[in-house]
Amino acid sequence: MAMKNQKIVLASRPTGEPTPDNFKLVEAEIGEPAKGQVLLRSVYLSLDPYMRGRMNAGPSYAAPVEIGDPMQGQAVCEVVQSAHADYAAGELVLAPIGWQTCALSDGAGVQKIDAALRPVSHALGLLGMPGLTAYTGLLNIGQPKVGETLVVAAASGAVGSVVGQIGKILGCRVVGIAGGEEKCRYVMDVLGWDDCLDHREADLPKRLKAACPKGIDVYFENVGGAVFEAVLPLLNNFARVPVCGLIAHYNTPGLPTGPDRLPLLMQHVLVKRLTIRGFIVFDFANLYGQFLADMLTWKRDGHIQYKEDITDGIENAPQEFIKLLRGGNFGKKIIRVSKDPT
Amino acid sequence: MAMKNQKIVLASRPTGEPTPDNFKLVEAEIGEPAKGQVLLRSVYLSLDPYMRGRMNAGPSYAAPVEIGDPMQGQAVCEVVQSAHADYAAGELVLAPIGWQTCALSDGAGVQKIDAALRPVSHALGLLGMPGLTAYTGLLNIGQPKVGETLVVAAASGAVGSVVGQIGKILGCRVVGIAGGEEKCRYVMDVLGWDDCLDHREADLPKRLKAACPKGIDVYFENVGGAVFEAVLPLLNNFARVPVCGLIAHYNTPGLPTGPDRLPLLMQHVLVKRLTIRGFIVFDFANLYGQFLADMLTWKRDGHIQYKEDITDGIENAPQEFIKLLRGGNFGKKIIRVSKDPT
Repeated sequence: MAMKNQKIVLASRPTGEPTPDNFKLVEAEIGEPAKGQVLLRSVYLSLDPYMRGRMNAGPSYAAPVEIGDPMQGQAVCEVVQSAHADYAAGELVLAPIGWQTCALSDGAGVQKIDAALRPVSHALGLLGMPGLTAYTGLLNIGQPKVGETLVVAAASGAVGSVVGQIGKILGCRVVGIAGGEEKCRYVMDVLGWDDCLDHREADLPKRLKAACPKGIDVYFENVGGAVFEAVLPLLNNFARVPVCGLIAHYNTPGLPTGPDRLPLLMQHVLVKRLTIRGFIVFDFANLYGQFLADMLTWKRDGHIQYKEDITDGIENAPQEFIKLLRGGNFGKKIIRVSKDPT
Repeated sequence: MAMKNQKIVLASRPTGEPTPDNFKLVEAEIGEPAKGQVLLRSVYLSLDPYMRGRMNAGPSYAAPVEIGDPMQGQAVCEVVQSAHADYAAGELVLAPIGWQTCALSDGAGVQKIDAALRPVSHALGLLGMPGLTAYTGLLNIGQPKVGETLVVAAASGAVGSVVGQIGKILGCRVVGIAGGEEKCRYVMDVLGWDDCLDHREADLPKRLKAACPKGIDVYFENVGGAVFEAVLPLLNNFARVPVCGLIAHYNTPGLPTGPDRLPLLMQHVLVKRLTIRGFIVFDFANLYGQFLADMLTWKRDGHIQYKEDITDGIENAPQEFIKLLRGGNFGKKIIRVSKDPT
């Protein structure tokens, strides 16, 4: 059974914001699985801001995507055909096959998805990498305490929305920052945070100060840029800043013009005894079991809401990714590559 | 018995580097101690870079010195006369009396100096605040492991020299950075570190890279500026940066011209999962007992060398402090205010 595969490859490296012509849709036939292989059909493809970094040639914590290779990423897949002892046709798995409709795999990096965890798309979000990122970064680095003020950038996003909800469960005052009135309303009304500020409106520093009358104890950094600038003077003594992402800078080649605020940041670090610590989710992979147990309990008890922003068709992945980097998504961005079999 | 007191007061706030006319020597009579007071005679006065911050009006972790008030700081003092039940004439104490030759005290902040700890001037350095700073910042934040590379700025100074020697005891490769050939020779020949680079010579980034072939795991930050710039690209994944001081910036009003390197720093934090954490010694005051026990053992076993740079006469405190901020000291800077009675 030969299948037609559609994949989105990196056609050229972007300078600044990616454009549609940095991507190319390529079609190819894909053969039957050899012994020890499975043939996977992609159902849901995850789009995440970190993928922008892999489009650059420079070294990062992951190797860059090479020109002509498919864009990388996790997908929820159905096993179509198996010549691998561990997998049977019809099973659902999480697999790092990237931006393509199907793929052969020898099982490397493939994880089965527990049939009890539904909807399966949550394996890419709430119950997957973004959820684990939120949980481990907040608990291990942010270390929020009852009554402290937690500020979360990209508040309605895949990671931020979970961070703030955990903060509420732990008894913090939680203030979100998001782009646009609709997102802010969602964060306050549906997620139940204490406040949410639209960073597109004027005077963010002043409004943030008013929203955080006791200063900021934990700032979960997803964005950088003007939001961090507003946060920095409000950080309390001994505040913690888990650095999870810097989406405001991903599309910026080179350094912004001055003045040079690096010494200013270091002075804040010294005088206020801040902890600024970067992490990526793989650093805490060993906490997945504990995370899943807590998250399923919180979800069952109604403490966790989760929003997905789903677009159909692999051909739309480039434009949706470009939108994502501009904050044009609303909730966890997912491409539905084929019909969900569940 | 009325005594004449000489004190150095803050005459005006400096802009940038302090000048002699920011200070003023004032004489006054000092009376006998009332009930519950002691009359203290200063023997050794500590000069430390952090004092520069207290000359500014802005808030910091300590209140600023007011115009007309004596400069603040710790001194080793002899009790001249006591009307306080806990102190007897002739005893030696550490007291926060600042830059003056004598003072009345009600015992607030006063600690007796154990007669077994000699020379007594070490209470201001190796066995005092600078030593505890080095020990707690390195062990609690730096967390060096055997075989890791530790880089120490201001390597021959009161704090830096202790940091690196503890690093050697713990089995690290230790590379110092200091100002001038004489200091570098001392750090290598007397302190026994693996290398020491003169930051006044050209090409520090290149020389530092050569001295740290496996990158940098712990950078103990005392200085900021061009040294931190050379360190940043060499930091390894999961490197730790205890931020103890930023002497390169203390005299700089405003921000340097651009480009703005704050986003660059945050990108390093994210991609390399750095921990940058500020601290001051009071945050770890509860570790003093453990510190003293370890330090006395290491000293007894010949693992710790300590250099003092002593100048006689309180009238010289301003010029010596100005020199200290330029790196003109060589070892822990102390003013001998009166004859050491031990």
